[in-house]
Amino acid sequence: MTNIAEAQLIALDWGTTSARAYLMGNDASIVAERSAALGIMQVATRAKEQSLTLNKAFEQALVELCDNWLEDYPQTPVIACGMIGSQQGWVEATYRPVPADLADPTFELASVQIAENRRMYIIPGVLDLKELPDVMRGEETQILGAIELGDTATDDAAEQLFLLPGTHSKWATVQGRTITGFSTSMTGETFGLLSTQSILSKLIKPTDSVSWDAFERGVNISKSSNGDADLMLTSFSARTLVLTGRLERTEVSDYLSGLMIGAEIRSVLGAWHDSALPALTICGNEELSARYTRALKVFGVTEVRALQGTAPRGVWAVASALGMFQTTSV
Amino acid sequence: MTNIAEAQLIALDWGTTSARAYLMGNDASIVAERSAALGIMQVATRAKEQSLTLNKAFEQALVELCDNWLEDYPQTPVIACGMIGSQQGWVEATYRPVPADLADPTFELASVQIAENRRMYIIPGVLDLKELPDVMRGEETQILGAIELGDTATDDAAEQLFLLPGTHSKWATVQGRTITGFSTSMTGETFGLLSTQSILSKLIKPTDSVSWDAFERGVNISKSSNGDADLMLTSFSARTLVLTGRLERTEVSDYLSGLMIGAEIRSVLGAWHDSALPALTICGNEELSARYTRALKVFGVTEVRALQGTAPRGVWAVASALGMFQTTSV
Repeated sequence: MTNIAEAQLIALDWGTTSARAYLMGNDASIVAERSAALGIMQVATRAKEQSLTLNKAFEQALVELCDNWLEDYPQTPVIACGMIGSQQGWVEATYRPVPADLADPTFELASVQIAENRRMYIIPGVLDLKELPDVMRGEETQILGAIELGDTATDDAAEQLFLLPGTHSKWATVQGRTITGFSTSMTGETFGLLSTQSILSKLIKPTDSVSWDAFERGVNISKSSNGDADLMLTSFSARTLVLTGRLERTEVSDYLSGLMIGAEIRSVLGAWHDSALPALTICGNEELSARYTRALKVFGVTEVRALQGTAPRGVWAVASALGMFQTTSV
Repeated sequence: MTNIAEAQLIALDWGTTSARAYLMGNDASIVAERSAALGIMQVATRAKEQSLTLNKAFEQALVELCDNWLEDYPQTPVIACGMIGSQQGWVEATYRPVPADLADPTFELASVQIAENRRMYIIPGVLDLKELPDVMRGEETQILGAIELGDTATDDAAEQLFLLPGTHSKWATVQGRTITGFSTSMTGETFGLLSTQSILSKLIKPTDSVSWDAFERGVNISKSSNGDADLMLTSFSARTLVLTGRLERTEVSDYLSGLMIGAEIRSVLGAWHDSALPALTICGNEELSARYTRALKVFGVTEVRALQGTAPRGVWAVASALGMFQTTSV
């Protein structure tokens, strides 16, 4: 059993298709880590299959995820971020509008009872209520974690840009610890659909290795005048280049990935026109970070910092800002 | 039985998911018409299920489609256009490169034997071998039919633009009867995937009627500066506008349709910059033609001609150009 003095926080990054739990000790150290395919979608399916109330199914999933931590550390705060706070989650945590100070000590967390005298807290998402609104849940906590893990010398006044690639990529501008605006690109989800279910999928021959040549070829197309047209027009080339013998079937997937990530980056960079891009940090898994870093380089953006697994550090920062640690045990 | 003198041509428009057969009489009149869910995909499935050779399955499908016509008119030419001439079809009809004179009397049709001393001919597709190549099969014949059905006063020297909306929209420039270039937009297929299988589909509440307000709202977004970004970025608004109470769930589908058709039109019109758009003809079903006509109007393109079912007239024109009619019976 972990020393009780080390257990300061049980942090959860609870998303749509996966859930991660972290037992955190002094100085935000990660003492233990667990993950399970217990995203809110799977929990909902289980509730249906086992005729449980959704509430009961989430309770069970939490116990499964945290194993003995809940019993062993009955006083330790439990805080989650992510889609667990959505309408389809356990309990809804509303969105905070931008500009959203991620470490504001006065903001309220949603909560749900998980035992007698014990609640799990949920960090609200962030909403950018522009003409085409944008929402995030979980990414705000990853961003806060990245800020905490970043240079302590960071100038609070300087604008920073954060990219969180994935099913729905988020690009957020941040000043100090405040999210000032953000946009979503459905790149990952659209890539998944086009590469497995569209006519383009018929020609894809899977391989174990990434063809960076094919990937960069796609990025370059999106950067070129061909990329003036929407992806709906350029993407058909993932078929016709094969039909005309100019692309191998083993290259289709990476070519399409490059086209799409290139179109996303082009769209986002376009918003800066001729002004200098703020310092850019990517928070994502290794594979996606490598793809975006390569693609950004094609666009001339070479100074990119990549961080992974920043969510628990973000949950820690929220707990700290809200004074949730028992000062006696710190 | 139709008078033998009236049977000049059996024309087939044989696509991926459906097939249509036309018995044509003097002056390209349509004497009878049949359609069936016997596209090349369904025929391939049937071949597998019934352990038939693909050749045998296509033979059966042709007989099913044409019923007694093949027996009743043993001398009448049988000519098909469409995906039946693709690698996945019955026999491959290669592509003709642009500029492709659709009524060139010297070009060769592919053919396959369908009875003793009888062959079915297949019109080749068209290929535009630019940096991002484009291919069409069947649309070239619809375009030729539209030209034949169009004003006889058409100035052969004037460039025309043809739009064939659908799973993969085609936009072709035509001079006289020659296709000079074209582009493909995967609009229909991408709309199908996003509106039934992506996160956007969760909020869609189906209705019987079209919400033209929601549709035009989407078109206007794509036309506005928001549309500078790729559809992957604007499409997430089909979710967030509902979450923020600014779009009804019954409007999501038409809003998304407008966004996508708008992005397609914006991309295509962009190629003309400030020059005047050529005269535009839409060849498509009534519903899609109505959507594109509305969307084009938002972009200031108000003079649009819409034609339907032009394929048989195109097959007729090819047969005529190639001298395939028995002059004795005309």
